[in-house]
Amino acid sequence: MLSQAKPGEIRSSLPANPPAHGEPFDALLKDVEKLILPGITHWQSPNFFAYFPCNASGPGILGDLLSSGLGVQGMLWSTSPACTELETHVLDWLVTMLGLPEKFLSSSAGGGVIQDTASSAALCALLAARERATNYSSNKKGCDGRVVAYVSTQTHSSLQKAAMIAGIGVDNLRSIDVDENFAMRPDALASQIEADKRAGLVPCFVCTTVGTTSSNAMDPIADVAQVCRQHNLWLHVDAAMSGTAAICPEFRHLQNGVELADSYNFNPHKWMFTNFDCNCFWVADRKALIQTLSILPEYLRNQATESGAVIDYRDWHIQLGRRFRSLKLWFVIRHYGVEGLQHHIRRHVELAQQFAAWVRNDENFELAAPTPLNLICFRHKAGDAANQTIMDRLNSSGDLFLTHTKLNGKLTLRLCVGQTNTQAKHVERAWQRIREEANKLPSAA
Amino acid sequence: MLSQAKPGEIRSSLPANPPAHGEPFDALLKDVEKLILPGITHWQSPNFFAYFPCNASGPGILGDLLSSGLGVQGMLWSTSPACTELETHVLDWLVTMLGLPEKFLSSSAGGGVIQDTASSAALCALLAARERATNYSSNKKGCDGRVVAYVSTQTHSSLQKAAMIAGIGVDNLRSIDVDENFAMRPDALASQIEADKRAGLVPCFVCTTVGTTSSNAMDPIADVAQVCRQHNLWLHVDAAMSGTAAICPEFRHLQNGVELADSYNFNPHKWMFTNFDCNCFWVADRKALIQTLSILPEYLRNQATESGAVIDYRDWHIQLGRRFRSLKLWFVIRHYGVEGLQHHIRRHVELAQQFAAWVRNDENFELAAPTPLNLICFRHKAGDAANQTIMDRLNSSGDLFLTHTKLNGKLTLRLCVGQTNTQAKHVERAWQRIREEANKLPSAA
Repeated sequence: MLSQAKPGEIRSSLPANPPAHGEPFDALLKDVEKLILPGITHWQSPNFFAYFPCNASGPGILGDLLSSGLGVQGMLWSTSPACTELETHVLDWLVTMLGLPEKFLSSSAGGGVIQDTASSAALCALLAARERATNYSSNKKGCDGRVVAYVSTQTHSSLQKAAMIAGIGVDNLRSIDVDENFAMRPDALASQIEADKRAGLVPCFVCTTVGTTSSNAMDPIADVAQVCRQHNLWLHVDAAMSGTAAICPEFRHLQNGVELADSYNFNPHKWMFTNFDCNCFWVADRKALIQTLSILPEYLRNQATESGAVIDYRDWHIQLGRRFRSLKLWFVIRHYGVEGLQHHIRRHVELAQQFAAWVRNDENFELAAPTPLNLICFRHKAGDAANQTIMDRLNSSGDLFLTHTKLNGKLTLRLCVGQTNTQAKHVERAWQRIREEANKLPSAA
Repeated sequence: MLSQAKPGEIRSSLPANPPAHGEPFDALLKDVEKLILPGITHWQSPNFFAYFPCNASGPGILGDLLSSGLGVQGMLWSTSPACTELETHVLDWLVTMLGLPEKFLSSSAGGGVIQDTASSAALCALLAARERATNYSSNKKGCDGRVVAYVSTQTHSSLQKAAMIAGIGVDNLRSIDVDENFAMRPDALASQIEADKRAGLVPCFVCTTVGTTSSNAMDPIADVAQVCRQHNLWLHVDAAMSGTAAICPEFRHLQNGVELADSYNFNPHKWMFTNFDCNCFWVADRKALIQTLSILPEYLRNQATESGAVIDYRDWHIQLGRRFRSLKLWFVIRHYGVEGLQHHIRRHVELAQQFAAWVRNDENFELAAPTPLNLICFRHKAGDAANQTIMDRLNSSGDLFLTHTKLNGKLTLRLCVGQTNTQAKHVERAWQRIREEANKLPSAA
């Protein structure tokens, strides 16, 4: 489960120099088994409950293999039209599948693109917001230290990284306070924006989260959107893990207000059975994004691009080169069908809710946050040291893997149900093992 | 070869809505054959001579399949130690294989990391340079519009994009003039830096290229490095395609001076038989890079990271998540061996040099730039329209695919020999077809 390798252990088993002559393939496979596998933390184990999942499936893997084999470079429409058009098509499908607003459809003024990760998607959204707020002058003249962006104290750290990369600076990234459910407080956001405006700064961007990494908190998108509208700020919605739940109509209320967002993203590589990397990113105004990221040197000029009749996805993200990632996503959607995907998501949520009920009914444990979907934040009541001990022992046992966070200053265990093959028996066993380790605590009766 | 699909043609063949129920796998494969393949431009054809290659090989593809199957997330050492350690190990191997300076070894103050593309590597280098030059204050306070970076007029457009992203702005990216071989003029660079300093600006970064995209020009790294040293600027070397040639000692002179670089990158996914994406990026001072990109939220804290004994590659690039990309690179190196790789590179260069000789000896054609390696820039003497016609006819014939650039204002054809399976017969046939189309020109005798 969690690799028990010591730092440097794997490297020390590898030869210091590359081979001068080619080696037979079975020598490679033997080394994979002997040297590499012991150093793997098994993200695809049904007993993996750590972080957020990064799940996969047979059809996803085969779609990716096909992408590797075709070896297509999709930087421009013309460098492989199918790579661009299948991607646009599948991202349009997903707008419907997830109940996202029509403005994200490619037939509207918006559109979707596959990015590698939510970090990159957030960076692109922040850049487009920066440009829109500065009348597209930052790209030309550089940032001037007056542009300000807003997240909550619970927003993913990638937004902080994006602010650093974009030349905005972390001092200009405001961490808005959260309520008792760890959700952004719109009133605090509004006050901060007003204060910044009074100070002559240029507010440009707010990131709300559907399911924060730490505790799966749901920011009140609709209320935040009102504040954004009032001040003309770009509203980005990060639904990296929990966005997948929107494939089930009964969970869509968790992202009420998404119809007011300027951009949205979720990761099929987290909870939708599509192997890493696959982030889906939509914008309501594709011109803002393209104007932010477009460059066109002579050696990439071509008739299709000049005609304006095609999408060149290289202008929708940081990189120039791109692989044919929509294949795996297409394979997954067709293999499972919408109902098949719904079935698995519902099952994961059901298992997680069952686990939450066990915690709620156990006198030694408590829930540390609401559990709207498939992440349970919980802790043993004996305090931080006890929880650390439980976690360390579980993780080194090889029976399961979970990770932690801090909520209200207290060490909190996180258990996320989302691996493709996780079934009731795995979650039951996890709870059993957690209680076993709790019972071994020195303080236990 | 070059897909003949019309804009919208592939999409129009796909169903408007995703399937409600799962479909059998053979239905997917039939659609791949019927709907997708006609929309593919075949980058892996031996008759692909366009852009720069994006080649691949069986072992690379199988290594990537293994990566998809393991589904490992290598953001931290602890999330799969083998993913980090194999990567560090293979990048150390490559330092030796390519004759790069020892300061890039992980055992020194530097080290290597796999990025997706040269665009991302250049962005990271530029960010580290920006931070170093501003005493790590831009990350905090944002860019102030005074930071200046330097490229040549021939540098890849990704550097312009990086300057936009990094909040530096294209107005602060100086395009230094080139000499008659399209190589950066160190004297012009020095003058510009001095002028910028006099103007109170903060020069931070120079990008030199080993083999520009347009014409495969070689910037004089050693001379540029002297200028950088004098003014304490970060020197980045972009060897995206041509870096692979350094595996052959006889081509290493093309990057003389690389021992003075602060960062260097090349793409095994271009010319080293490793399927996309795989960019290798080294820095001489890993602390500068990590200090630029590091963030550490509670939910990613772990003992191994705190100990300082391990590398967490998430701090070496833009994204947080990362796949196990070193597997494919390891497979390629072990399958071919160093001598096998050298053999194929030498063969490609030999074929390209043969082609250059044919051009040189043909009275209707001329070389448009030096041909140090595997890219030939050439043109028919009848002018732009004639060259455009030749290229369009060749590309729509399906016999081969090549692209163009502009050099000294003139349309120039580019033929790059680098696809894994390109043999003498393919290059011979390409030259035959080019002459055939030339002979059909109205102006032809």
